[in-house]
Amino acid sequence: MLEFSLLNGKRISFPRGVCGVEIAKSISENLLKDSVGLILNGRVFDLQTPLIEGGELRILTLKDEEALPILRHSTAHLMAYAIKELFPNAKMTIGPVIEDGFFYDFDDLDLSIEAFGAIEKKMHELTNEVKSFDRVEISREAAFKLFGDNLYKKEIIQGLPQSESITYYTLGDKFIDLCRGPHVLNTNFIKHFKILKTAGAYWRGKSENKMLTRLYGTAFFKKKDLDDHLIFLEEASKRDHRRLGKDLSLFFFNDVSPGSPFFLWNGAVIYNELQAFMRREYLVRGYKEVITPVIYYKDLWETSGHWGHYKEDMFQLPVDDFEGALKPMNCPSHMLIYKQTPKSYRDLPLRIADFGVLHRNEIKGSLGGLTRVRKFSQDDAHIFCREDQIFNEICEVIDFANKVYTETFDFKYSVVLSTRPENFMGEIDVWNQAEDSLKFALEAKQIPYQINEGDGAFYGPKIDFRIKDALNRSWQCVTIQLDFQNPLNFDLTYEGSDGKKHRVVVIHRAILGSLERFIGILAEHYVGRFPFWLSPEQVRFLTLNDKLHASAFEMKDDFLKQGIRASVDDRNESLGKKIRDAELIKIPFIVTLGEREIQDKTVSVRSVGGKTKVISYERFKNLCLEFIKNRERTVDLG
Amino acid sequence: MLEFSLLNGKRISFPRGVCGVEIAKSISENLLKDSVGLILNGRVFDLQTPLIEGGELRILTLKDEEALPILRHSTAHLMAYAIKELFPNAKMTIGPVIEDGFFYDFDDLDLSIEAFGAIEKKMHELTNEVKSFDRVEISREAAFKLFGDNLYKKEIIQGLPQSESITYYTLGDKFIDLCRGPHVLNTNFIKHFKILKTAGAYWRGKSENKMLTRLYGTAFFKKKDLDDHLIFLEEASKRDHRRLGKDLSLFFFNDVSPGSPFFLWNGAVIYNELQAFMRREYLVRGYKEVITPVIYYKDLWETSGHWGHYKEDMFQLPVDDFEGALKPMNCPSHMLIYKQTPKSYRDLPLRIADFGVLHRNEIKGSLGGLTRVRKFSQDDAHIFCREDQIFNEICEVIDFANKVYTETFDFKYSVVLSTRPENFMGEIDVWNQAEDSLKFALEAKQIPYQINEGDGAFYGPKIDFRIKDALNRSWQCVTIQLDFQNPLNFDLTYEGSDGKKHRVVVIHRAILGSLERFIGILAEHYVGRFPFWLSPEQVRFLTLNDKLHASAFEMKDDFLKQGIRASVDDRNESLGKKIRDAELIKIPFIVTLGEREIQDKTVSVRSVGGKTKVISYERFKNLCLEFIKNRERTVDLG
Repeated sequence: MLEFSLLNGKRISFPRGVCGVEIAKSISENLLKDSVGLILNGRVFDLQTPLIEGGELRILTLKDEEALPILRHSTAHLMAYAIKELFPNAKMTIGPVIEDGFFYDFDDLDLSIEAFGAIEKKMHELTNEVKSFDRVEISREAAFKLFGDNLYKKEIIQGLPQSESITYYTLGDKFIDLCRGPHVLNTNFIKHFKILKTAGAYWRGKSENKMLTRLYGTAFFKKKDLDDHLIFLEEASKRDHRRLGKDLSLFFFNDVSPGSPFFLWNGAVIYNELQAFMRREYLVRGYKEVITPVIYYKDLWETSGHWGHYKEDMFQLPVDDFEGALKPMNCPSHMLIYKQTPKSYRDLPLRIADFGVLHRNEIKGSLGGLTRVRKFSQDDAHIFCREDQIFNEICEVIDFANKVYTETFDFKYSVVLSTRPENFMGEIDVWNQAEDSLKFALEAKQIPYQINEGDGAFYGPKIDFRIKDALNRSWQCVTIQLDFQNPLNFDLTYEGSDGKKHRVVVIHRAILGSLERFIGILAEHYVGRFPFWLSPEQVRFLTLNDKLHASAFEMKDDFLKQGIRASVDDRNESLGKKIRDAELIKIPFIVTLGEREIQDKTVSVRSVGGKTKVISYERFKNLCLEFIKNRERTVDLG
Repeated sequence: MLEFSLLNGKRISFPRGVCGVEIAKSISENLLKDSVGLILNGRVFDLQTPLIEGGELRILTLKDEEALPILRHSTAHLMAYAIKELFPNAKMTIGPVIEDGFFYDFDDLDLSIEAFGAIEKKMHELTNEVKSFDRVEISREAAFKLFGDNLYKKEIIQGLPQSESITYYTLGDKFIDLCRGPHVLNTNFIKHFKILKTAGAYWRGKSENKMLTRLYGTAFFKKKDLDDHLIFLEEASKRDHRRLGKDLSLFFFNDVSPGSPFFLWNGAVIYNELQAFMRREYLVRGYKEVITPVIYYKDLWETSGHWGHYKEDMFQLPVDDFEGALKPMNCPSHMLIYKQTPKSYRDLPLRIADFGVLHRNEIKGSLGGLTRVRKFSQDDAHIFCREDQIFNEICEVIDFANKVYTETFDFKYSVVLSTRPENFMGEIDVWNQAEDSLKFALEAKQIPYQINEGDGAFYGPKIDFRIKDALNRSWQCVTIQLDFQNPLNFDLTYEGSDGKKHRVVVIHRAILGSLERFIGILAEHYVGRFPFWLSPEQVRFLTLNDKLHASAFEMKDDFLKQGIRASVDDRNESLGKKIRDAELIKIPFIVTLGEREIQDKTVSVRSVGGKTKVISYERFKNLCLEFIKNRERTVDLG
């Protein structure tokens, strides 16, 4: 007999092999009607899978967030069924659940977006014809017999461990699919779904394999949830930085260099301003910026361990008579810089920063926009310190992160501390002390945090900040990673006040992370309306007639000399059109000049939202300079 | 009979085959005594070489600059003679004249600097024993017989064209060397010489060949000239940027990445400030900065022509399933950017700037300091314009160069215009117009210039600025190169006001050139005492006692917040030592704080040269800010 404890504290017993259906039914018939699956000791099962252990059990109903993946997985099967009906030659491969939805990959299927309606229609029809999903356990031999003529399924079965039982699920009489589950009990749950897009995808994600047709979709239990999600997707698509990148002339890609963005002037302005912002902070915070090589002999990568663990992700090339590679990260070069001269305890902490160009050989198919690139730069730094300095340094980095994310931009964030994993290196004592330093620092700075026990890297614990953008999506940006490994690999020491040699501690840290990705996040967060100090074009002068052009150009030149990015629109177009065009590319201040303004030495300035204010020319210029100097989040002419 | 016209207009005749000795003697015995060689129709001969054509002839005496290479070449032979006497196993290879001296490469010679004295002594002895250099013409067979057991000489003979006669020169009875000349007549001229240094050098400069021992030396006719030159060399060595790079913690090199400098914080500050300076100028001058990829498929290099002509100088690497290379220059990426969207005559001029990281696969043996590197960045820009805009654009670039070299730094420069070569591409009319535009621009800007007829690249004429540093050495920095080729290769056009397509003109231009090299030049020019705005550390606070440290740190933080690079020396050292240390690394302002200063809110500031001034704290800070903002060349607290 297995004993289960329910959420309400009640305990119930069933024979080994009981399924969720019987448990739900035993609680109430009504519950069963709404039940989608269950969670047993933290693992999700559907209601048809025989349970072989007792423990804490919770029935998942259509009200539970955790039930959505089950629904979506079943919807993927339903979609595959519809595809097979409409396109009998299509070969099914795999169809997993992903965040917010599912996909299914097919071979020998040629689809356009126009077919989505027909497939959805077929899916709805099928939910009326067929009802139940049924789980069947079979032997390996039977599995090969049943699915062996589909080479993809055959390959999957070959990859399954001998110890594991093999299952498939039926949907009505005609459709079966090799599957581990879980699934809903019947198609009554599957009402609110949508096929979203199609894309090419290599079998198993490897570019040497065949390109398959991937169909993405999503499903919800309630119509309103689906509608909300579709609105969210539309909003996200409007904010898609790839679209904004084009509309605002920020950047583009070219086939001669996949994954390496070409930043146009507007994008380069933002890139350079972000760097300048970080540089100013570096000056005040005692960071030392360095500029380091891009190509290194493999010797360095052997010392750092990259040659053993990361070689395939680097761009390799012959250099002189040796093997070499482009750097995928700055750490090893900074270790060399530390080692360049002997260090004493008085030299620490030493904070080395670097915006060096990094390259990672990401699979071509996985590249996309600024969030997955091959060439990028980070606001990377390595802090070399003594053990007793860890706490202070972590506090400083947290302050820095707050300065950036809370004061300068307006992102919220959540924090996770990852602690010692099982395969840790070094001394438990050192780990404990280091983890305590991280905790104390977070607490000293009153930052709420979650602990991911055992989730740290083998070479040290770390703190991650996940920032939330305007659409509530989260992005991993800030990382503070302690490193006990590199100081060993590179034999990095300092002479203590005791005259003895001590091992130095290394803290890797990035605040913005990849500048490329951060610009993508910023663009989406602000829907292209960047803060004033980051705006590629800050002020545009328009004139009421051609005679005023000379004055407009004079003002523009005056602004440029002060470092304010200004332009004149002297096209032969109507004022209305010029204003609309300037608003379209989100220029913060649009200045209209008439004879009167020039006589009075005033300007009529149109701000975001169409608010217009007449203000003295000098005051306007000085306000712009102040907004820039203070990196104001919102600008108001009063 | 050959007829020669002399400088004084006199004409003289001699039989074909006459030597300079006879001609000089015919003019005067005294002249012969001072004669070293002659120039016939622009070519230098020694006095022993039979002349086979008449023309304009000038006898070179020891007063002529052009006679120095002859003296130095003979001194190289004399040195080789001494080496053979002292180290009989050494094998002679080649010993040419170079700028300011000569070298000779030996195989099987192991030398230390301590041996230089003995060699020089031997050379002086030999000038007493043996006197005359004699020229001997022999057949190819005889040459092989005479020199064939020296594999290097054998290789040289094999490389000589069949048509050329082979000569050797003797020095006394015991020494001969395969040599084309020219040489002085006798060792009386060779009195003032110096062996300067030794270095390794590959045979024929190729790293797959054997490493030889190279001995550098120089020689002059007058003792004073030699002494002056040795003083110059010492001064240059004090200024050597490699030495300054180490002393001032500007940069270093590491064997894991030959030719790619590691800029330490002090060097990176200068690097970034130079970039920021250029960026501010770009804003005012209407340049658009872009950021471009580093790796490109070979497709791009095929279009640009690099794959055909420059492949070996690029770092090549596999990318995806293709061949690729790291960019050695920015041009092709800028052509792609131009092509990204259709252009109209109203979009021109378009000035695209780029500080992109460039790589060139220079031979490892040729790398040295910041002047010959593999990784570097340029203040590179390409101006896309109409033909009728060339004049204005060139004027603008000349203004820009003046702003940098004359206003901001204090370099003098000379200008060379290189015109249409024989193998030019395109229309003569277009060339003439373009050359006129360049000339008119130089004249409009009142810049004196030389014309190098026919010395332009095949794809367009160019203007070069050679700047002169404090030691009067010249450096090729500014280049303004017209390019008719790239617009064709990439098919770059614009729509004219006539609605038709026109070919665009491309102007490549760099003001600083390679930032790495420019920093090397700056360091040497200023002997490490960079202008205030470029100084890595601008202000250092020292205190009279420990109790004042807190105030010093407060001031430092205040300065840092304003963007002034300041520090506190709080070491437990005497004030005198702290001042000396700060002066050693050339910090422009050294501030000493006592109780009185802190009470009075003043500072006592020591400037370059030890001048000290007491000044209010706020005024000092504001002056520093002004000096930085105006990029003052010299700073004076009044």
